[in-house]
Amino acid sequence: MDRIALVGGGLIGQAWAIVFGRAGYEVRLFDADPAVLEQARRNIAARLDDLASLGLLEDGADALDRVRYAATLGEALASADYVQESTPERVEVKRALFEELDRFAAPDAILASSTSGIPASSFTEGLAGRQRCLVAHPINPPFVTPLVEICPAPWTDSAVVDRTHALMLAVGQAPIRLRREIQGFVANRMQGALIGAALRMVKDGVVDAEDIDVAIRHGIGLRWSFMGPFETIDLNAPGGIADYLRRYGQLYQAIEHELATPLDWSDEALIAKVEGQRRARLRAPRLGERSVWRDRRLMALAAHKRRAADDFGE
Amino acid sequence: MDRIALVGGGLIGQAWAIVFGRAGYEVRLFDADPAVLEQARRNIAARLDDLASLGLLEDGADALDRVRYAATLGEALASADYVQESTPERVEVKRALFEELDRFAAPDAILASSTSGIPASSFTEGLAGRQRCLVAHPINPPFVTPLVEICPAPWTDSAVVDRTHALMLAVGQAPIRLRREIQGFVANRMQGALIGAALRMVKDGVVDAEDIDVAIRHGIGLRWSFMGPFETIDLNAPGGIADYLRRYGQLYQAIEHELATPLDWSDEALIAKVEGQRRARLRAPRLGERSVWRDRRLMALAAHKRRAADDFGE
Repeated sequence: MDRIALVGGGLIGQAWAIVFGRAGYEVRLFDADPAVLEQARRNIAARLDDLASLGLLEDGADALDRVRYAATLGEALASADYVQESTPERVEVKRALFEELDRFAAPDAILASSTSGIPASSFTEGLAGRQRCLVAHPINPPFVTPLVEICPAPWTDSAVVDRTHALMLAVGQAPIRLRREIQGFVANRMQGALIGAALRMVKDGVVDAEDIDVAIRHGIGLRWSFMGPFETIDLNAPGGIADYLRRYGQLYQAIEHELATPLDWSDEALIAKVEGQRRARLRAPRLGERSVWRDRRLMALAAHKRRAADDFGE
Repeated sequence: MDRIALVGGGLIGQAWAIVFGRAGYEVRLFDADPAVLEQARRNIAARLDDLASLGLLEDGADALDRVRYAATLGEALASADYVQESTPERVEVKRALFEELDRFAAPDAILASSTSGIPASSFTEGLAGRQRCLVAHPINPPFVTPLVEICPAPWTDSAVVDRTHALMLAVGQAPIRLRREIQGFVANRMQGALIGAALRMVKDGVVDAEDIDVAIRHGIGLRWSFMGPFETIDLNAPGGIADYLRRYGQLYQAIEHELATPLDWSDEALIAKVEGQRRARLRAPRLGERSVWRDRRLMALAAHKRRAADDFGE
């Protein structure tokens, strides 16, 4: 597989273009809105410059040259081996689009969706080529956040999962394979559980939103950024993870019991409270520039992790 | 406050000695077991060398010189302004010890516990000086993980909380203040929620333990290491956190509904499963050397964050 079609030119599609382009693949990016494509062209060039300036890319010009922009869906799909869809998160949009993709893509091309929350089974069931459809969910932005969650529908061919996994490794991502569909896939399920616990503490007035962020970014988030949660607890008891779970399982069980009280995620008073606490830290007009800052911090972190892995192993 | 007594010479007490010693405070470390103190002396010197070699410490010899070892509890407490207890996590141990601390420490000294799971109210209630007792819970190891959770008992004097908070800032830690006692404090509550979600997926065979760690260390753990979870989602929807919660709240609500099914944390079959998957990655005899690696990675990350904060702001 060396020809990639990207459908949807928003932030996720742009980021995929960088991932595939820098890895040497020929990319065709399509969006139904020419203005989106024009914006994509500018953003991709700017991000490639950022990556090069932080030493994360040897030849940004080559990568830029490999990303082409298609005027029609057909042009993007022509001879593509792998299609990555990154359009709005609405099941009816994906259902209509995947019908087109299945009709016009080459017969053995893989059709992958970037969806973060819609299982492939809900928009591919009726397709003749449903066995070649699956989810390959990136974390924004994937050119500095390598995780890709590969989640097949019940009818996805296992060879399609294998090939997608191999492709993601080949372009430098960190793929994981889910054995079956679950809501929110893996990462957002953990994020949701953590944020749910955090929201309850803010709602109850135990701490404010900023305390939550401090607790993670100056606390357990540090270890998680290079070890993950299981390796973390594996090193936090003399006898490893089993020892840890036997020592602290009862405490966590008690906490879970408290967290089992339902939280209403649509509670507008709670939403207003966290919104107010966040806006006191960062005014709304600055959200955009802060996102650029985040991407640059992620790039710097990626460069650091590369050095640290060389120095200390990973 | 400039004289610190540390009671308990294990890994946490040693780490506190580094935190206070490098910040210019006079430290007296006591442990009832002379062999523990001797080990502490060696470990503290080794860690100070590591910190200096990674550019995190200007004068390790000065810091080392400020850490003294007390032969008796009384000697450690003599003229201390602040006492930090780091002994085993058993409420009866802490109750007996705090009675001694309250009797022998200077009348206005603060008595803080490093406990990660026992609220101060459960071992200080009967003390004459209970208003000067509280929890100051570090994350291991605190010389590279700055979070300190300050959690008062219902009877803790708010001036004691203020002074502890100021002291932690003065020694370069990142303190947060809880307004009331909750089980597990803040960080471990979030860690517990995340690990609970992860254990369910491993139990159900959706993914293996290593996939969980990849999903965090190559995924959402990256952003959390410098932003925290609320700032992360604040930047993940065009209109900020309120917009994010309105877009994705329903998905997270559905996930929470599934997570509400109780998990038995003492399930030995589940413990054996994650233990087996971890031991396939890291054999038990290597846990110790991996902990040293973790500390060095944390030091390198701290050095990186310091540089990145200069380059891009934090």
